[in-house]
Amino acid sequence: MVQGAVASVRAEDVEVLIREFAAMTEPGPGVTRLAYSRLEREAHAVFARYMRELGLIVWTDAAGNTIAELAGQDESLPAIGTGSHLDSVPEGGSFDGVAGVVAALEVARLFVHGDVRNVHPMRFVVFAAEEGARFGQACTGSRIVAGLTTSSDVGTLVDNDGVVLADAMADVGIDPRRVEDAVWRRDDWAAFVELHIEQGSVLTEVGARVGIVDVISGSTRLRIDVTGRASHTGGTPMHRRADALAAAAQVILTAEEIANDAEHRGTRITVGRIEVGPGSITTIPGSAHLFVDVRDIDSDRQREAASQLIAAAYGVGEERGVGIQVEMLADASPAVLPLWVRSSIARSASGLGVDYRVMPSGASHDSQMVNHVCPAGMIFVPSQNHGISHAPEEFSRFDDLALGVDVLAASLLDLDARMQAESQ
Amino acid sequence: MVQGAVASVRAEDVEVLIREFAAMTEPGPGVTRLAYSRLEREAHAVFARYMRELGLIVWTDAAGNTIAELAGQDESLPAIGTGSHLDSVPEGGSFDGVAGVVAALEVARLFVHGDVRNVHPMRFVVFAAEEGARFGQACTGSRIVAGLTTSSDVGTLVDNDGVVLADAMADVGIDPRRVEDAVWRRDDWAAFVELHIEQGSVLTEVGARVGIVDVISGSTRLRIDVTGRASHTGGTPMHRRADALAAAAQVILTAEEIANDAEHRGTRITVGRIEVGPGSITTIPGSAHLFVDVRDIDSDRQREAASQLIAAAYGVGEERGVGIQVEMLADASPAVLPLWVRSSIARSASGLGVDYRVMPSGASHDSQMVNHVCPAGMIFVPSQNHGISHAPEEFSRFDDLALGVDVLAASLLDLDARMQAESQ
Repeated sequence: MVQGAVASVRAEDVEVLIREFAAMTEPGPGVTRLAYSRLEREAHAVFARYMRELGLIVWTDAAGNTIAELAGQDESLPAIGTGSHLDSVPEGGSFDGVAGVVAALEVARLFVHGDVRNVHPMRFVVFAAEEGARFGQACTGSRIVAGLTTSSDVGTLVDNDGVVLADAMADVGIDPRRVEDAVWRRDDWAAFVELHIEQGSVLTEVGARVGIVDVISGSTRLRIDVTGRASHTGGTPMHRRADALAAAAQVILTAEEIANDAEHRGTRITVGRIEVGPGSITTIPGSAHLFVDVRDIDSDRQREAASQLIAAAYGVGEERGVGIQVEMLADASPAVLPLWVRSSIARSASGLGVDYRVMPSGASHDSQMVNHVCPAGMIFVPSQNHGISHAPEEFSRFDDLALGVDVLAASLLDLDARMQAESQ
Repeated sequence: MVQGAVASVRAEDVEVLIREFAAMTEPGPGVTRLAYSRLEREAHAVFARYMRELGLIVWTDAAGNTIAELAGQDESLPAIGTGSHLDSVPEGGSFDGVAGVVAALEVARLFVHGDVRNVHPMRFVVFAAEEGARFGQACTGSRIVAGLTTSSDVGTLVDNDGVVLADAMADVGIDPRRVEDAVWRRDDWAAFVELHIEQGSVLTEVGARVGIVDVISGSTRLRIDVTGRASHTGGTPMHRRADALAAAAQVILTAEEIANDAEHRGTRITVGRIEVGPGSITTIPGSAHLFVDVRDIDSDRQREAASQLIAAAYGVGEERGVGIQVEMLADASPAVLPLWVRSSIARSASGLGVDYRVMPSGASHDSQMVNHVCPAGMIFVPSQNHGISHAPEEFSRFDDLALGVDVLAASLLDLDARMQAESQ
C-alpha cells in the first residue's frame, strides 16, 4: 500500500460531519460544548457510533477519551494513531478539534471502504477536555494518557462555578480515581498524527493549503488576585482609594507591554478573563481576579515573561497599596515535534501535489502531550477570517479540510509502510 | 416647644433597629437588599408597622415610598419631613440609608412618647430605590416625588439581568404607569432634613460628631462598550489583536488620570463594574462593558470630566482598532442646600453642645431630589473604618448615631417653631 492509493475525501462529507457536531451546543453564539460536560460525552458517543458502524472496536478509557481501533495485518506491532478533541471553549467555533475528529472518521471510512491493508493497528482517538477554558488546564485527556496529569491532580482543578474536575468527571460517568488506567504504554504506540485548523493566518497569507508543525508553543497560565478596598465612589477621594480594578488595568497593560517588548518577540500574553467585585457602579472595586495565558515556542522566554509579569504585578500592588496573590494554574513546555514524522507528512503532501508550509503552532494541542509517549506530528488546515478562532467566526473551507484529510491518510499509510520496512 | 426639650435617643435602641434591618438581606457578605426587590418591600413594611404602632397614619405612594404622618396642631400648614432609604448596593453595609430611617423612627418615638406639640404635620419618609447599583440611576423614589423621573423613564432603565425597572416595580406590586401620582406638591411640604452616614472620613479626622451638608455632588453615569475581536490566545500574534479588555484597561487608567489631574481637583471617577466576554482564559476578549461614575460638587467640572473621558475612550478605540460606544445612564447635577435649613441644624447642634462641621457630600442623596420640591438639609454622622461605605466594613458608632438623631429632632422642632413664627 502506498500513499495516494486510496480515494480522495469529499468536501461535502466533511461539511455534513462538521455541521452535525456544531449542532451539539449549549444555546448562545457559536459552539459551547465544555470539557467533561454531557454535550461533550454525547459528541463522543456520535463518534463511537460511526466507528462501530464501520466495524471498528471502540472503547472509552478511564480519562474519558474515546478510541476506535482498525486491526492491522500484524497485531503484534504498536499502533499508529490520529485524532483530536470534541470539547470547545465557551462561545467557540465549529472547527477547533472537531476538524481532526472528522478527519479521523473520514480516514477510517477511506481505509475500511478502500479495503486498505494497514500492517500496524490504526487507532482513531477523541481526547477528552482539550480546552483549558473550563478548568484552566489544557489537554487534560491527553495529559492523562501521557502520565502528566494524575488522579491526585484532578482533585485540585476547579471550574468557574467551583466544580472540581474530579466531580465533573464523575458526573459524566468517569471514575476520577482510576485515571491512571488510561496511561498509554510506549511500546503500544508507534506514531501519532493530528489534523487541526491553524487558528492563525499564516497559511492564507502565504497561499499554502497545508501546514506542517515543527514546534508547539508552551503555555503558562496564571491567576492574579488583586485585593483592594471596596468603598463608596462618591465618598472616597481619589488619593484614598485602593481600587482593585484600576490596579488590575495596570497589570493588563503591563502584560501587553512585556509581550510587545523586543526581547519577547513571539511571546503572547493575554488576559482572557476578569472578575471584579462587588460589581456595582457606585462602589469602588474591592477585588479583581485576572486569568492570564503566557505562550511562547521558546521555553525560556515563556517562563521569563511569566516571571516578569508576576514581578510587575507585585510592583503594582506595592505602588497602589493593594494586595497581590499569584497562582500558577497550569504550565506546559513547548514541544519540538520529531523530524521524521514531519518528513513523512511533507512527503505525503508533495506526493499529492499539495503546497505545504512548515510552521510553529501558537496554540497548545493534544499532540504536544502524545509526543511524550510516541513520535507525533501535526497537519494544519488554513483558517479563514484572518485566523479567528475560539469565536463563532472561526471558519475553514471544507475543500481545504478534505485536502488536509487526504494528506493525513497518505501520511498514516506512509508511516505504516516505512515503519514496517524498518522493523523487518 | 423648643429644641432640646425632648428626651435623648439611646444608642441601644438605635443599635437594635440597625441590626433588625441588617438581618433582612440576601445571603453573602454584608447587606444586599436591592432597589425594588421583595426584601426592600419587607423592610418598608417593618418601618410601616412600627409607625402604625406609634399611632401614625402610614401610606405607600405610587413610587413605592412609604410615608408616615404625625398630625400637627395646624393641619393647614405644609409638612416638615425627615427620612432616607432602605435599599442597599450588592454586598453593602448596614448603615447607608438605614441610619436615616432609624433616625426617623426614633424621632417619631421621641415626639409621640414625649408628647411634643408640633404645629406643622411631621412626615417620616422611606424613599424607594435610592441606590443606583441596580438600575444605574440613583434616587429613583425621590426623583419620582420631585417629578424628575416619569412613568416613561421607568420603561427604559434595565438592571444587570435585563429586568426593566417598570417590570421590577410591577413585580413588587407598584404600578409603574401611575408613578406621577406620587409627585409632591410644593405647597404641601415646608422643609425636609435627612440624616445619613458620612461615607467618608472628614468627621473622624477633624473630630466633629456631626456634619452639616452645604452641597451634594452631582453624578454622571456612563456605560462604555468596547468591541474588539475574540480570537485564540495562542494563534493570534500581539500585533494582530483587537483586545477589548486591553483597550478597556487603557480607558480605566485614563479615567483615573483625568480625575487625578490638577484641573479636576475634587472630581471622582470610578469604573465600578466591568463585564468581559467571552471570558475564557484561551480567548482574546471580544467585548468589554464599563460602568463609570463621574462625580463632582462643581457642575461644570463634572460634565467636563465626563466629556474628556468619552473623548479619550474614542481615542483609545481609534488607536487600537476597537469599537467604542458610550451611553449616558444617568446625569444628576450637584445641589447647593439652602442656608436657612443649614442654619437651623447648626443652631440645634450648638444648642445641644455638639461640635459640627459644614461639609460637602460626595455621595448622592434623596435630599438632593427633595430640594427641588422644598428646602432640604442634611445631617452627617461620622463613618468609622476610614469612611468605607458600600461595603460590609461600613460602620458608624451607635452613640454617634443617637447624638445625630438628637440634633435631627431638635432641628425639626426648630424649623417647626421658626416657620410657624414666620407664618404668623
